[in-house]
Amino acid sequence: MSNRNHNYAIVGTGALGGFYGARLQKAGLEVNFLLRSDYDRVKKHGLIIDSPEGDFTLPRVRAFHDVHKMPKCDVVIVALKTTQNHLLPKLLPPLLKDDGVVLVLQNGLNTEPEVAKIVGSERVVGGLCFLCSYKVSPGHICHLDYGTITLGEYAKNYQPIGITNRLHQIAIDFKRAHIPIKMSEDLLLSRWKKLVWNIPYNALSVILDARTDELMANPDTLILVEQIMREVVAGAKSCDRIIQDDFIQHMLEYTHKMKPYRTSMKIDYDESRPLEVEAILGNPMRAAQQAGIKLPQIGVLYRMLKFVDAQRQEAEKTRRLLGVQ
Amino acid sequence: MSNRNHNYAIVGTGALGGFYGARLQKAGLEVNFLLRSDYDRVKKHGLIIDSPEGDFTLPRVRAFHDVHKMPKCDVVIVALKTTQNHLLPKLLPPLLKDDGVVLVLQNGLNTEPEVAKIVGSERVVGGLCFLCSYKVSPGHICHLDYGTITLGEYAKNYQPIGITNRLHQIAIDFKRAHIPIKMSEDLLLSRWKKLVWNIPYNALSVILDARTDELMANPDTLILVEQIMREVVAGAKSCDRIIQDDFIQHMLEYTHKMKPYRTSMKIDYDESRPLEVEAILGNPMRAAQQAGIKLPQIGVLYRMLKFVDAQRQEAEKTRRLLGVQ
Repeated sequence: MSNRNHNYAIVGTGALGGFYGARLQKAGLEVNFLLRSDYDRVKKHGLIIDSPEGDFTLPRVRAFHDVHKMPKCDVVIVALKTTQNHLLPKLLPPLLKDDGVVLVLQNGLNTEPEVAKIVGSERVVGGLCFLCSYKVSPGHICHLDYGTITLGEYAKNYQPIGITNRLHQIAIDFKRAHIPIKMSEDLLLSRWKKLVWNIPYNALSVILDARTDELMANPDTLILVEQIMREVVAGAKSCDRIIQDDFIQHMLEYTHKMKPYRTSMKIDYDESRPLEVEAILGNPMRAAQQAGIKLPQIGVLYRMLKFVDAQRQEAEKTRRLLGVQ
Repeated sequence: MSNRNHNYAIVGTGALGGFYGARLQKAGLEVNFLLRSDYDRVKKHGLIIDSPEGDFTLPRVRAFHDVHKMPKCDVVIVALKTTQNHLLPKLLPPLLKDDGVVLVLQNGLNTEPEVAKIVGSERVVGGLCFLCSYKVSPGHICHLDYGTITLGEYAKNYQPIGITNRLHQIAIDFKRAHIPIKMSEDLLLSRWKKLVWNIPYNALSVILDARTDELMANPDTLILVEQIMREVVAGAKSCDRIIQDDFIQHMLEYTHKMKPYRTSMKIDYDESRPLEVEAILGNPMRAAQQAGIKLPQIGVLYRMLKFVDAQRQEAEKTRRLLGVQ
């Protein structure tokens, strides 16, 4: 990856990929958007971003619905939901320059090794997004709050290898687009730390149909959240990643102060989209299991979410069938 | 307790107490029914029982709304929901003959010791009901299926003391009323065995809004049910009660063959009644905890149900307030 004028591909132009991609294009970078259902609309009318940091419209964007028609890129951003990851073996190879990298901006654990199997470990970096946004309609994204990305290098089996030059290069592009960037020396540790928040709140918000403030206000779910967080910390430890005790307290206080928040999994659920159960709960659970550590509380959440997800997808299938007939 | 002509008090004339009490009266026994909200209706019109074993009406019953106006009885049946057990210290002493017994026909664990604190250990027996019935309207009960009661003697700390004469006496009365009776040599073991079914299905049916057949048809909830059953068996073991391994398989097969079933906790939930979370989950969990054994999966169910229950009761309070205004 050269030091200047990188071009970007956005694989998955939704609430996250669309937002970051639009910001990068607005900052003067070449961004190529891969779309599926929203292709026609975006090809014609571009992207609209509502944001407390300033609304803007991009009347023309480089929109594609076929990776083979796209230029090869320096940075290929994976912004699909992890439930679509079975598509990656077909999508990534045609998009990536020989010295390009894939930046995985997804939730949960173990997508980087999956991507590494496709493009090689040395061509993968990871990013954790703290972003609150949703798609209003095709090509129209509303950014609500936050936006920081934590970037981390990937090496085989999540070995920590510090901060590389190419990570700095990507950071420069994002900062140009006014996206706050943090750097992680240890991507796996960062992913586990994010799971400390993501596992309890995503799972409980869907299972109990609750916002974060409701989960924090009830004494029983408050205890449950904290207990689950402790189990995530135990999971991290099974992968030799130590999360300090005060981190849990910090996350709880942070959530207490947050505006009432609908988690990404709850938004997916409400929109009848498949839930990211495997990436956010299944993969961490199995990682711990392979190290001989059981996470029984997370196991309960996992099974419940699989049930809820299956019921929802079944209902959605029926709804579509009836809609078509 | 003498050998002949026992009189009965039914504390809590709902779907369970009303059904068994009506059957006992129909068999010629004296039954005194304690009622609260349904008192006026039942005083005037008696009880109506619909049942696949034969519908019947009792136009006149001994209905009371004040324990101090009731005769003292040989057998006082506690058929309240356990969520009402705070009322027992006031209700039981005026009702009980000096040589009478209290028969606890409630769900879950540790009601007998609570009752023993009020009337003395030597005056308590327990019963486990396998009954499927619901209240259609005040004084009108629909019996759907099953009905067997397993009777067991209570002694301090649930010591097993075998089958006593008074247990046989009660059994004779119930058999006269065509209620199938089993005898347990060990009440605590019987209670834990019932919990093997009750904990997973009651909890999951409410949390996941699901019938038993849906929980059995989905591979993830099937695994979850079995895992929770194993945890209940571990809880029993912590109280020195051994449940054989094949019992779980037996319960699963039994449930597979059952008609789709709405659990008692799900019925309470759907009717906006408080849930029996403490008796069915909290007490078993704490019993194991006192023996140094953690039941983490049941702990998750417990906290979730406490949340769901609190939310529901809050909504119900609001509904009533708005209804009154």
